[in-house]
Amino acid sequence: MSKQNPLLEAFKQTNYQVAGNGKRNVQVLKDAFAEVDGEFESDMYGKGKVIEEFQTKIAEFLGKETAVFFPSGTMAQQIALRIWCDEKGLKKVAYHPLCHLEIHEEDGLKELHHIEPVLLADKNRVIELKDVVDLDQEIACLLLELPQREIGGVLPDYDTLVSISSYCREKGIKLDLDGARLFEILPYYQKTAAEVCALFDSVYVSFYKGIGGIAGAILVGDKDFIEKSKVWKRRHGGDLISLYPYIVSSDYYFDRRIPKMEQYYEEAKELAAFYNQCDSVQTKPLVPVSNMFHVHFDVAKGALEPILIEIYKETSVGLTGYLQETDENSCSYEVSIGDQYEKVPKEKLAKVFELLREKVSKK
Amino acid sequence: MSKQNPLLEAFKQTNYQVAGNGKRNVQVLKDAFAEVDGEFESDMYGKGKVIEEFQTKIAEFLGKETAVFFPSGTMAQQIALRIWCDEKGLKKVAYHPLCHLEIHEEDGLKELHHIEPVLLADKNRVIELKDVVDLDQEIACLLLELPQREIGGVLPDYDTLVSISSYCREKGIKLDLDGARLFEILPYYQKTAAEVCALFDSVYVSFYKGIGGIAGAILVGDKDFIEKSKVWKRRHGGDLISLYPYIVSSDYYFDRRIPKMEQYYEEAKELAAFYNQCDSVQTKPLVPVSNMFHVHFDVAKGALEPILIEIYKETSVGLTGYLQETDENSCSYEVSIGDQYEKVPKEKLAKVFELLREKVSKK
Repeated sequence: MSKQNPLLEAFKQTNYQVAGNGKRNVQVLKDAFAEVDGEFESDMYGKGKVIEEFQTKIAEFLGKETAVFFPSGTMAQQIALRIWCDEKGLKKVAYHPLCHLEIHEEDGLKELHHIEPVLLADKNRVIELKDVVDLDQEIACLLLELPQREIGGVLPDYDTLVSISSYCREKGIKLDLDGARLFEILPYYQKTAAEVCALFDSVYVSFYKGIGGIAGAILVGDKDFIEKSKVWKRRHGGDLISLYPYIVSSDYYFDRRIPKMEQYYEEAKELAAFYNQCDSVQTKPLVPVSNMFHVHFDVAKGALEPILIEIYKETSVGLTGYLQETDENSCSYEVSIGDQYEKVPKEKLAKVFELLREKVSKK
Repeated sequence: MSKQNPLLEAFKQTNYQVAGNGKRNVQVLKDAFAEVDGEFESDMYGKGKVIEEFQTKIAEFLGKETAVFFPSGTMAQQIALRIWCDEKGLKKVAYHPLCHLEIHEEDGLKELHHIEPVLLADKNRVIELKDVVDLDQEIACLLLELPQREIGGVLPDYDTLVSISSYCREKGIKLDLDGARLFEILPYYQKTAAEVCALFDSVYVSFYKGIGGIAGAILVGDKDFIEKSKVWKRRHGGDLISLYPYIVSSDYYFDRRIPKMEQYYEEAKELAAFYNQCDSVQTKPLVPVSNMFHVHFDVAKGALEPILIEIYKETSVGLTGYLQETDENSCSYEVSIGDQYEKVPKEKLAKVFELLREKVSKK
């Protein structure tokens, strides 16, 4: 694989990477379990101390009545929407055109749940109150993704969120939060997780984005909603006899990385500014509102690749392991800041961008 | 919990247990990962060395073209049936009335896939060729569970399997194997896994029954079938970014326990014989055909519980942690032999059954 992918190969050889929480390897599991006693009992089909305590902890953090741990967000979100649709007796929901359910789940929502999505807003911007008010059909639930990942991690104003929430409550539309990166946006909004979640009826959070766990998700809501979600979790095949490998690691990295979200956010802004000083390079958003952003180059993928490889070799700092072709003259990639950024020596980072400015401007 | 359940509490306090592979605790994970290098890379959404190599290994062991690892058998089996139904354009399958899909999955097959099951055979016996031949409606797929777990782990004759398989091929009915305990029946049939699987179009195996892993399942079949199953795996929310905690542990315990299946089978027959020497006690089947059987007492649950607790305290050997009430005068429980049985000193085991004969006959 690596031989066919020289950029990824060169990236893996670097001593420093500006993005992420480090390699996704077995050490991630070993670190999480190092201090856990071998006698500590597994969960059993959703019961037991390890799962119940973590669910309670996250429910409290998010300010909701109760919670259930899921192996994946894909499962949690389809189920949340299904419950709200069943409650209203209407299999119709609204979400952004680049919603995870629309583009990354092989149409599970449609194929398994026969729910019809209404796509709201243009794909290059977030959903605004007007989009919801202008809806010309009834829906059971509106899903908002904060931040909107596929356009670089963009957020509506907090006031917009509040107004959408009020409007939905008034109209009897359930509001569901795709909070895969909820923890990452709190420093920008300057809100607690519970304050944001209070605007929503149901919320899903992920433990392998900013938190950097192995896998796993939690869905929160009121008791009736969560009890129903457990039935659907079993139907989906997600009620595993043991989920503790994901729960223990989620809990471990949650404790370690929640306090670092502010730092990641500040570092994302710093790094984006470096990029934006280069000709032919622009980040989206221009100023990040979370730990993430997209980097867009007005340079062909084929031309940029050897430049990046050269820079990685010279500095031993890696910027990205892949490039996504936008068109024949441009390409992009996603950056999410985690533990790795602080380890990159400042002078090395300066050198990387000095080289990037020099080499890209020559193109 | 334990205070409300004195039998389970007493069982947990024993030094020896006759059934199972030991406690389901974090040590199971620690043992599996002890020798795995921290640098070993995670799988990524179904790709990577760790998942691909294990899939290949199991596909070869089962004699099928290819394989896919699933977080659960519930997910794997619903998907297998869905693919066969879609292929035939007929959403109807046949299985035993006590099939896992019928009684343990909150009707996922019906609620998510809208597949109608036809229940074959009386619930107290296995499916025979006649049941299939006498079907008065067309079906896309027949599911056989070997052994039929809910009636104690019962098997049809091997010749029956062969004749059902031939009949299904002739009639264009796909044959699917619920092989949750496939490895456990090979010593009785005196067949290889590949020989048994050759009779079926698709096979699911589990890694936390006799194998004693943490969780996880594999579905095998031909390439076209498995490619489709990967799409459905994503739709179900089972295509996790990392499944390696289950894969590495499944592989570890697979290597250690596959060679012990013959031993478990012999031990199950020995233990069942001990039970059957007691008045008012009978195992189902009378002579086990795998590592498992059910123990039926013609004694009320409330009367048996204190007897068992007394025996556990006197011998420090545990027989079961629960009793299932059959009616007001009888109860039962399931036994699956694993690594624990060989550790029980023979004289202690003899003492247990001496006490059981004595105390139960007094009732």
